[in-house]
Amino acid sequence: MRKVGILGGGQLGTMLAEALFALDAQVRIYDADPRAPGVRRLREAVSAPWSDQAAVGRFVEGLDVLTYEFEHIDGSPLRALGDSLRIVPSIRVLEVTQDRALEKQFLAASGLPHAAFAVARSEAELREAANRLGYPFILKTIRGGYDGKGQFHVAGHEDLAAAILALHERKSDFSCVLEEIIDLAVEVSCIVARDETGAEVTFPLFENAHEGHILDLTLVPARVPAEVAAVVREVALRTARAVDLEGVLCIEFFVGRTAARRSSGLAAAGLHVYVNELAPRPHNSGHVTRNACTASQYDVLARVLLGLPLHEPQLVDPTGSYCMGNLLGDVWIEQGRGAPGQGLDLSCWKDHPSVVDVVLYGKTEPKPRRKMGHFVVRAADADTALAEARAFRDHLRGR
Amino acid sequence: MRKVGILGGGQLGTMLAEALFALDAQVRIYDADPRAPGVRRLREAVSAPWSDQAAVGRFVEGLDVLTYEFEHIDGSPLRALGDSLRIVPSIRVLEVTQDRALEKQFLAASGLPHAAFAVARSEAELREAANRLGYPFILKTIRGGYDGKGQFHVAGHEDLAAAILALHERKSDFSCVLEEIIDLAVEVSCIVARDETGAEVTFPLFENAHEGHILDLTLVPARVPAEVAAVVREVALRTARAVDLEGVLCIEFFVGRTAARRSSGLAAAGLHVYVNELAPRPHNSGHVTRNACTASQYDVLARVLLGLPLHEPQLVDPTGSYCMGNLLGDVWIEQGRGAPGQGLDLSCWKDHPSVVDVVLYGKTEPKPRRKMGHFVVRAADADTALAEARAFRDHLRGR
Repeated sequence: MRKVGILGGGQLGTMLAEALFALDAQVRIYDADPRAPGVRRLREAVSAPWSDQAAVGRFVEGLDVLTYEFEHIDGSPLRALGDSLRIVPSIRVLEVTQDRALEKQFLAASGLPHAAFAVARSEAELREAANRLGYPFILKTIRGGYDGKGQFHVAGHEDLAAAILALHERKSDFSCVLEEIIDLAVEVSCIVARDETGAEVTFPLFENAHEGHILDLTLVPARVPAEVAAVVREVALRTARAVDLEGVLCIEFFVGRTAARRSSGLAAAGLHVYVNELAPRPHNSGHVTRNACTASQYDVLARVLLGLPLHEPQLVDPTGSYCMGNLLGDVWIEQGRGAPGQGLDLSCWKDHPSVVDVVLYGKTEPKPRRKMGHFVVRAADADTALAEARAFRDHLRGR
Repeated sequence: MRKVGILGGGQLGTMLAEALFALDAQVRIYDADPRAPGVRRLREAVSAPWSDQAAVGRFVEGLDVLTYEFEHIDGSPLRALGDSLRIVPSIRVLEVTQDRALEKQFLAASGLPHAAFAVARSEAELREAANRLGYPFILKTIRGGYDGKGQFHVAGHEDLAAAILALHERKSDFSCVLEEIIDLAVEVSCIVARDETGAEVTFPLFENAHEGHILDLTLVPARVPAEVAAVVREVALRTARAVDLEGVLCIEFFVGRTAARRSSGLAAAGLHVYVNELAPRPHNSGHVTRNACTASQYDVLARVLLGLPLHEPQLVDPTGSYCMGNLLGDVWIEQGRGAPGQGLDLSCWKDHPSVVDVVLYGKTEPKPRRKMGHFVVRAADADTALAEARAFRDHLRGR
């Protein structure tokens, strides 16, 4: 029996643990938060600060492989483990994907399509880069940014001044990336998996809609022309190979309506494909694979970790549509159930037979914008799936 | 958050725990075996003998509801809990389904189609019943029999003498049921779920093939005429109502080619439908629902336990076929991996892309006839699904 360690006991780590159990692995979870779902549910779980080297040392002892559910993690304790432990994805993949500047430079160096960008490490460099790239642009801090944290839409000089003020207030590293804005037709993501033998598979494309920079809805299959889907999958595979991936990598793409001013992306069917960002782990948009595909993103990662064969995941229903909707803490709060431990009231599920799955992550404290759960709708077509997903969530929120 | 207790930490209890977690329940598992998968994996698990009343008392403290993964359990400790605890399915359902004589008498009293039978409590009664029912018949001990344990095919006087000898050797209760033999066209099972409000759903029918009295393959959808499927589902619902079910109940059916000599069953499309036996819990044949249906048997039971709405589970792929194959300990042994803790070699999975799922239960000791895991094939049609399932298992066994 192989022993697998997972850094992080949130929803991604916990669902991965279940997939690993099904393949007879022994699973250990490490999370700083003793209330993390994986820590509360699973027997072999450790709660200690990530900086506690002794605890980390005990945790990795006897492991065959170590993986992680988030990339915003200090890589140095991992590097300290040296070559004594198989880490999947590798520390190199972690380092590239946790630093927006390295990630953009990697895309550029690998000839992968991306929006034009500039990197700045100080206020002076930022002003210079803004002039060089031109307005409007998106400003993103290099580290620690996800779900819209540390992002600014900069339309002109006034926005830039406001962003600089905000960066000063953060009192942290000033480093940031400026990105040309793409005239978006649609956002899609593609999960690719690759194992130590170089075997590789891609999942069907997901179409993603965001609200306030947080993933809101994921639709499968994505409504893009077949030529675009083919280009996206090919770029996903090229990205995985370029970073010498072992594990799963979710690649978020912008599909532009028109060629951008400074970067035309890869053209297909009159549209323009750009890699947006990379996540070297199961991804929020991939929850839908648990229902819509013959193997989930967790199943496939489990197979990579355990050295088992991979097969290209297929859509289980070649004719229908699936839509995943996120449930943020706001829904609990709007139900008047924001106090810790109060459950979500799901009684209105009765009126929504198209909702085939509800997954609540078991987080104890609902907070605004906190990902607390998701649900999945199955319908005959994309429009119905999207409408049903919106209707169910509105109903939950009492609208 | 509701607190759910599960008696039994085998594969059924553990998969139920996962479905309950997804709906934000707190789950406690009780198993006499400290090596049971649920005990080894889950944080809130207790291992103590079922006869340890103090341990049982501590286990049920604070639970909102208690359920069980097997019906071959002494009901008296449960009865001792009195009305203080919600038990799902009820003790009445447990008592009817754990005693073959009570189960047959329940079917007869409820007007549900069944093979002719006779009950005997002694050798003299057995000889008398054999004469009354006529040869051939199946003799089954009343309690403790599953997977063919305590079953005898009695074609005539000699077989009867051998069976009587075997029963004497068991030195246990002599009680048994004699059943007329049905001229089988096919065996099917139907899972029905019913909640405390009386809401009820049925799953699509499963077609089951047994080997040595143990379930071998389950095919979905079952290859029976629509009229037969409608009769089976209707009988399943009538059975659930007659026993006032809360929870899930798997009903195994015989579909006879010809009317039996003493019991004609319910006729449909020239075939004859008989209830064979009942299991008040998730069922081996229902594993396939995790892949083939919009909700699994575990999801649906979790919803009943938590008071959440039920929707009729649908086939995810209206055109294809799914086949579940059991993996018994024999496969480990044939691979030369029979020693405790040695994993199954799954490398041949590479050649079987139609195998979309493998689930290993994490039992530590492979034994002949022990259910250690299962796999699921997805194919365009029933014949291909069955052939692929057989080919994969043969390959695993080195054939």
